Amino acid sequence: MGGDHGPSVVVPAAALALVRHPGMRFILVGDEGQIRSELAAHPALADKSELIHTDVAIAMDAKPSQALRQGRWKSSMWLAIEAVRDGHADAVVSAGNTGALMVMAKFCLKTIKGVDRPAIAAIWPTIDAECIVLDVGANVGADSRQLVEFALMGAGMARALFGMEKPSVGLLNIGVEEVKGVEEIKGAAAVLKDLPLPIRYHGFIEGDDIGRGTVDVVVTDGFTGNIALKTAEGTAKQIGEYLRAAMGRSLLARLGAVLAQGAFRALKEKMDPRQMNGGIFLGLNGIVVKSHGGTDATGFASAVDLAYEMASSGVVKRLGSDVADFHTKLELEGAA
Amino acid sequence: MGGDHGPSVVVPAAALALVRHPGMRFILVGDEGQIRSELAAHPALADKSELIHTDVAIAMDAKPSQALRQGRWKSSMWLAIEAVRDGHADAVVSAGNTGALMVMAKFCLKTIKGVDRPAIAAIWPTIDAECIVLDVGANVGADSRQLVEFALMGAGMARALFGMEKPSVGLLNIGVEEVKGVEEIKGAAAVLKDLPLPIRYHGFIEGDDIGRGTVDVVVTDGFTGNIALKTAEGTAKQIGEYLRAAMGRSLLARLGAVLAQGAFRALKEKMDPRQMNGGIFLGLNGIVVKSHGGTDATGFASAVDLAYEMASSGVVKRLGSDVADFHTKLELEGAA
Repeated sequence: MGGDHGPSVVVPAAALALVRHPGMRFILVGDEGQIRSELAAHPALADKSELIHTDVAIAMDAKPSQALRQGRWKSSMWLAIEAVRDGHADAVVSAGNTGALMVMAKFCLKTIKGVDRPAIAAIWPTIDAECIVLDVGANVGADSRQLVEFALMGAGMARALFGMEKPSVGLLNIGVEEVKGVEEIKGAAAVLKDLPLPIRYHGFIEGDDIGRGTVDVVVTDGFTGNIALKTAEGTAKQIGEYLRAAMGRSLLARLGAVLAQGAFRALKEKMDPRQMNGGIFLGLNGIVVKSHGGTDATGFASAVDLAYEMASSGVVKRLGSDVADFHTKLELEGAA
Repeated sequence: MGGDHGPSVVVPAAALALVRHPGMRFILVGDEGQIRSELAAHPALADKSELIHTDVAIAMDAKPSQALRQGRWKSSMWLAIEAVRDGHADAVVSAGNTGALMVMAKFCLKTIKGVDRPAIAAIWPTIDAECIVLDVGANVGADSRQLVEFALMGAGMARALFGMEKPSVGLLNIGVEEVKGVEEIKGAAAVLKDLPLPIRYHGFIEGDDIGRGTVDVVVTDGFTGNIALKTAEGTAKQIGEYLRAAMGRSLLARLGAVLAQGAFRALKEKMDPRQMNGGIFLGLNGIVVKSHGGTDATGFASAVDLAYEMASSGVVKRLGSDVADFHTKLELEGAA
């Protein structure tokens, strides 16, 4: 029921994702009448879907604490998360209120043992591939220990999604020299440098290293990460506008644009934020994917795809064992 | 002497800037031999330049405190700043060590009365125009009062450079709702909302609002601002790569690119980071412009142009009276 458009986006999106992954099954939670009327146009999806009806939906502008108080046990958001907790679903995807989704997911699924606070991870396109950036908005600020946990979680996700053994990890900072940056980041660097875990610690990176693909996993606090993510989205949109304006300026440019339209289409697809739609909540006992609230069916379907990949990859187990391993080693060091 | 290339970039850059602003005069500070051999190729510049020789240059990797200790009174950086303090120059431009430049400029020029800490401002291209973003790296973190001072300084700069009466000001945050964000930002918002100064306070903005041009002045702390700036630069470069790859993909695309090459050239110019080269130190009794260390003559010349515009605009006086006005009003409020 979440996002700006509710079932009118979610249902067609599920239908799109089903075409790509015919083995998927769906549990659609929300107002049965609205969902059924959308499902009517998608019989293949209807065959693969189970409905859970509820009248209660979390408002997009509800405060997280208020959402938890009013929406627990009965809202569509809660019931969808609960389906993951109870093993009826492998992942939950929502376009609803981010803060409410995080609070409810934490309350219902609980954090993985050893994880202090969950983070939201984004898959960020780079020049040649992709990297994982976290936290992009779950928490404002993060201490050294949390940054290290983010590094472990991001690396676990990179191992599971990208199939790499030893992902490289960088700490986002305002200079690459060791002396720069805030205490929390320096503290995390000191721990990561000596960590006997399947991570290649790269060191500090700067904002322009994200898109350059300098590392596989970019670690930062949720405030900085969110602003970096939105700034990059804004810049991409801005350059798209420049390009459009430049290509319409002269007859020759317009003719050139017509000839190159296949190339422009490929570029547009590569720059399309809908292809990268989906923030992954990491550190919980279950997979939760948050879609942009304002996206369309194409965008929401990307978030569903992402949930599917995450569920198929066994990433939650992987994270759990990595974090446990880290804490065991920390304790051993403490005891030594 | 600063930057990756020293006089071999600075001297040709000054020559470029002189062509655009024939009324300029230069004081070139550094190794006389090196400067003279560069000047030989630029007789028009030589006519307009005065040389100050010194053997001491601040290393690009010197710590600020160490640079101040070793370079005070005698380094090229110091002597150039001193020329501003003593009224021999209207502005100083350096491609040297940022931290050292800030520390020396503070020590030599002193901050404007009422300003707690100077900030570095960047001029950021938007879809239709430009905006000012500060702080982009002078300080890590900023309290409410400092953020308000940044707002005043940025607005003063917008008035002077863009010729607008009441610039709009936004606080960079991770959500536009009033409840979001860190305490410092909320505190600044509370003050800015009721400020009887020539500012249009817009409210919170998000990362994608910067390039969209939602406000004339974007206020943030130096850590976040620096990461946003570098992330945007990285994204622009990344999309340039995508574009190049897309245009080389097929014969038709290559043909289209040839026809549209005028448009691509205009686009490239618009996206060229050298056009926007120059961080302005705000809040000092004098104009200090920091160029990227790795830039070429075109880029350094942009920084010189910027210094020229700033000096012609009377911005320092404007800032001084705005900040004084603000503090008077605060005191009156405190007394009332």
